Amino acid sequence: MKNRNLLIGQSGGPTAVINASLAGVVDFGLNSGCYENVLGAVCGIYGILAEDFIDLKKFKDPYRISILKQTPSSYLGSCRYKLTDDGDIYEKIFNIFQKHNIGTFVYIGGNDSMDTVDKLSKYAKVHGIDVSIVGVPKTIDNDLILTDHTPGYASAAKYVANSIRQLAIDASVYRTSSIIVAEMMGRNAGWLTAAAALANDDIISPVDIICLPEKPFDARAFLDKTADIVDSKKTTVIAVSEGICNKAGEYVTADITSRSKTDGFQHIALGGVGRYIENLINTNLGVKTRSIEFSTLQRCNAQTASLCDINEAFEQGRYGAKLGAEGACGVMIGITRGDTAEYKPKITSFDVSLVANKEKQIPDNMLSEDGFGVTDDFIRYALPLIQGEPDIIYKNGLIQFENRSKK
Amino acid sequence: MKNRNLLIGQSGGPTAVINASLAGVVDFGLNSGCYENVLGAVCGIYGILAEDFIDLKKFKDPYRISILKQTPSSYLGSCRYKLTDDGDIYEKIFNIFQKHNIGTFVYIGGNDSMDTVDKLSKYAKVHGIDVSIVGVPKTIDNDLILTDHTPGYASAAKYVANSIRQLAIDASVYRTSSIIVAEMMGRNAGWLTAAAALANDDIISPVDIICLPEKPFDARAFLDKTADIVDSKKTTVIAVSEGICNKAGEYVTADITSRSKTDGFQHIALGGVGRYIENLINTNLGVKTRSIEFSTLQRCNAQTASLCDINEAFEQGRYGAKLGAEGACGVMIGITRGDTAEYKPKITSFDVSLVANKEKQIPDNMLSEDGFGVTDDFIRYALPLIQGEPDIIYKNGLIQFENRSKK
Repeated sequence: MKNRNLLIGQSGGPTAVINASLAGVVDFGLNSGCYENVLGAVCGIYGILAEDFIDLKKFKDPYRISILKQTPSSYLGSCRYKLTDDGDIYEKIFNIFQKHNIGTFVYIGGNDSMDTVDKLSKYAKVHGIDVSIVGVPKTIDNDLILTDHTPGYASAAKYVANSIRQLAIDASVYRTSSIIVAEMMGRNAGWLTAAAALANDDIISPVDIICLPEKPFDARAFLDKTADIVDSKKTTVIAVSEGICNKAGEYVTADITSRSKTDGFQHIALGGVGRYIENLINTNLGVKTRSIEFSTLQRCNAQTASLCDINEAFEQGRYGAKLGAEGACGVMIGITRGDTAEYKPKITSFDVSLVANKEKQIPDNMLSEDGFGVTDDFIRYALPLIQGEPDIIYKNGLIQFENRSKK
Repeated sequence: MKNRNLLIGQSGGPTAVINASLAGVVDFGLNSGCYENVLGAVCGIYGILAEDFIDLKKFKDPYRISILKQTPSSYLGSCRYKLTDDGDIYEKIFNIFQKHNIGTFVYIGGNDSMDTVDKLSKYAKVHGIDVSIVGVPKTIDNDLILTDHTPGYASAAKYVANSIRQLAIDASVYRTSSIIVAEMMGRNAGWLTAAAALANDDIISPVDIICLPEKPFDARAFLDKTADIVDSKKTTVIAVSEGICNKAGEYVTADITSRSKTDGFQHIALGGVGRYIENLINTNLGVKTRSIEFSTLQRCNAQTASLCDINEAFEQGRYGAKLGAEGACGVMIGITRGDTAEYKPKITSFDVSLVANKEKQIPDNMLSEDGFGVTDDFIRYALPLIQGEPDIIYKNGLIQFENRSKK
C-alpha cells in the first residue's frame, strides 16, 4: 500500500461534522506512512469521473486540520449520484483509480453513498482489482443500520435541543399563552425530531409533544393532547418531523387553502408540515401559535456541534483510512456501545452490503405509547451523544472555515 | 438613597443580552451599598401595577450572575404596555413605588420603553416625587437615536453573519447554482439586515445583495442585479429585511393574511417577504432559490452572542443603577465612540425625552448608491461590535439559563 494513494470523496447532504471525518481520513492518510499521497475528489463520483482531484497535503498543518474539523458542510463538495448496473461506469472509475495510483477510496456519506461503496467493492472483488473501498458514515438522519449512531446526528440533535430551549424562553416572556411548532428534518426516521426531548431539563422543560414519522399522525388525538397541555402551561413547544404521515400513510403537508394566495406569479407557495400544524391549532384551539421551520442551519451549525460527535467523526475517518491501508474492501466504519450505563463507544466496521439501502427507524422501546413522545430509553441513548463543546476558532467575530475554492 | 430599594423592569422584545443588562443593574444594586434591596417587576409595567415583585438577592452569587448574563430572553418577563396620558395610572404607579420604598426604577427596553421612562420621569419631576427613573436601552433593531448602538444588536448581527456563512457553505456543496434568500427582522431600520454584509471575508464572500427598508425596493432593478450575479457565481445570499417597501411606501410582503397580528403598538407583524423574493426569482430567473426566515433565534441566540455586546450591556446596566443612586431622572444610558480608527466606546447618558419615539435608520453614507448594499463605513461601524466570544456554560450538552419560574 505504501506507494499508493488515498482518494477521498464526500456525498449526500452536508452535516456539521462530515469534514471532521474528512480530517480524520486525511490525518491518517498523511501521517501514518501508509500512503504515498492523499487526494480529494471534488463532488464525489462526479469528481472521480472528471478526474477533478485536489491534493490535500496542505492539511499536514495541524491548525488547518483544526479549522477543517470545525467547518460544516462538505469541504470536497458533494453529489447525489446513484450508480447504475451499467458495467461501463465501473470500468471507467477503476481505470481512473489505476491511472492515479489509488490504493484506497474512502467515501464519506449516508445511505445512498453506502450503496455506492457496496457496488464498487463488489465490482473490485469480482474483477480481482486490488483497491480498498471503505465507507465512512455521516447523516443527521441517524438512519443507518448496524452502527449505534451516525456522525452528524449528535450535532444536529444538539442544535435542535439548544435552539428549542432558547426559542421557548424567548416565547415565555409575555403573559399570554403561546405554542411554538418546530419543524425538523427527517423524512422517514424521526431521530432528529426526537432530539427535541433532550431540550427538557430541570431549568426549563418546554417540549410536550413530539410527532414522529414512526407513528401515524391523528389530528383529533393531537388536538386533544394539545388542548390539555395549554390548559396548564403557558409556553409549550411541539416538535414535528417533516415526514409525519396520517393513518393512510400520506404525508401530512400544508393545508393548501391556508397558503394559496395569489402572489402575482401564478405560483402557489407550499408551506411545510409545521405551518399545517400551526393552522390546525389556530383554527381549532385559538391559541397563539407560531411555526418555525428549522432551516438547513440544523445540519450545518458549527457553534452547537457536539464535541463527542466531532471526535467520533474524526476517529471513524482515521479508522476508515487505516482499514483501507490494511486492504479492507466492502466495509462501513461504525460504532458500537456496550450495555453499561456509562457511555463507552467502540469504533468498528460492518459489511457495507448489510447497511446499504436499509433504513433504521426509532425502535418501539424508545417511543411513548400515545405516539406523541419518546421514552427514557431514547434519552439514555441520545444524551451521551451531545456532550462536550468544541473550542471554536473565530477571527473578527466570524467562525473560521476551510474553503476549497481558496488556497 | 441608601435605605431605599432598586426596582428593575424589562420590556419589549427579548434579546440575547437584555439579561446581561439586568445582571449589570442587579450587580450594582446588590454590591454598591447604594441600595437597601433589589427587586424585579414581573412583566414590566404589569408587574408594577400588580405589585408582582421578586427579590433578586440570589444574584449575590457570582455564578448565578454568570448564568444570568448568558440567558437570552427577558428573565423578568416582558410587556408591551403603552402608558396613556391618564393621570390615574401614574398616581397608582408612584403610590406603589412609595409603598415598596422604591428609590430608583430602571427600565430596560427599546423605543417604546423609553417613552415609558420619559413619561414616568416627567410625572415625577412635575409632582416633585423623589424617585429616579432611568432607561437602559436594548433592541436588536439598533434604532435608538443618540446612542452609538444598542445592546442586543451586536449579538443578533453576529448571529446573522455567522448563520449566513454556514448556510452559504452548506448550499455550495452541489454543482448547481443556488440562491439563498435570508429574511431578517427590522421593520423600519435595516441595521440587522445590513449585518449580513459582515458575513463576507477572505474565506467566503456569499452576500451580494442586501435589501433594506431605507431604500425603496425596485423589483426590476433587483432582478437585473440578481441575474448579473448568478451569471458569474454559483452560490449567492440575498439578505432581505422584513420591512422593505416599494416606491409607493407599501410593505413588500407575501404573507399578510397568515401573519397579520398586531403586537399592542399597532405595527403590523410582518413576515413572508423572503418567500415573496424567492417566488420573484424562481418565476423570472429560474434559478434554484430557497428562502429562509431567520426566526426569533436571531434575537435570542446565546451561542453566537458577542462578548463586546454582553460586556457593554452589563456595564450600561451598572451605570444605570449608579446614576439612579445619584438621583438621575429622565435619562437613558447609552454609548458614544470617538473618531479614532480603534473602537473606544464610552458609556454615558442622554436625555430620554430626546430618544423616545424617535427612530434611527441607517445613514446615507453607510448605504450603497444602487440601493442593494452597504458601504465600508457600515463595516467599520459594525465589525467592532461583534468581536469576542463568551465562555458559555453548558451542563449535559445544554446551555444553562436562569429561569424565574425555578428557584
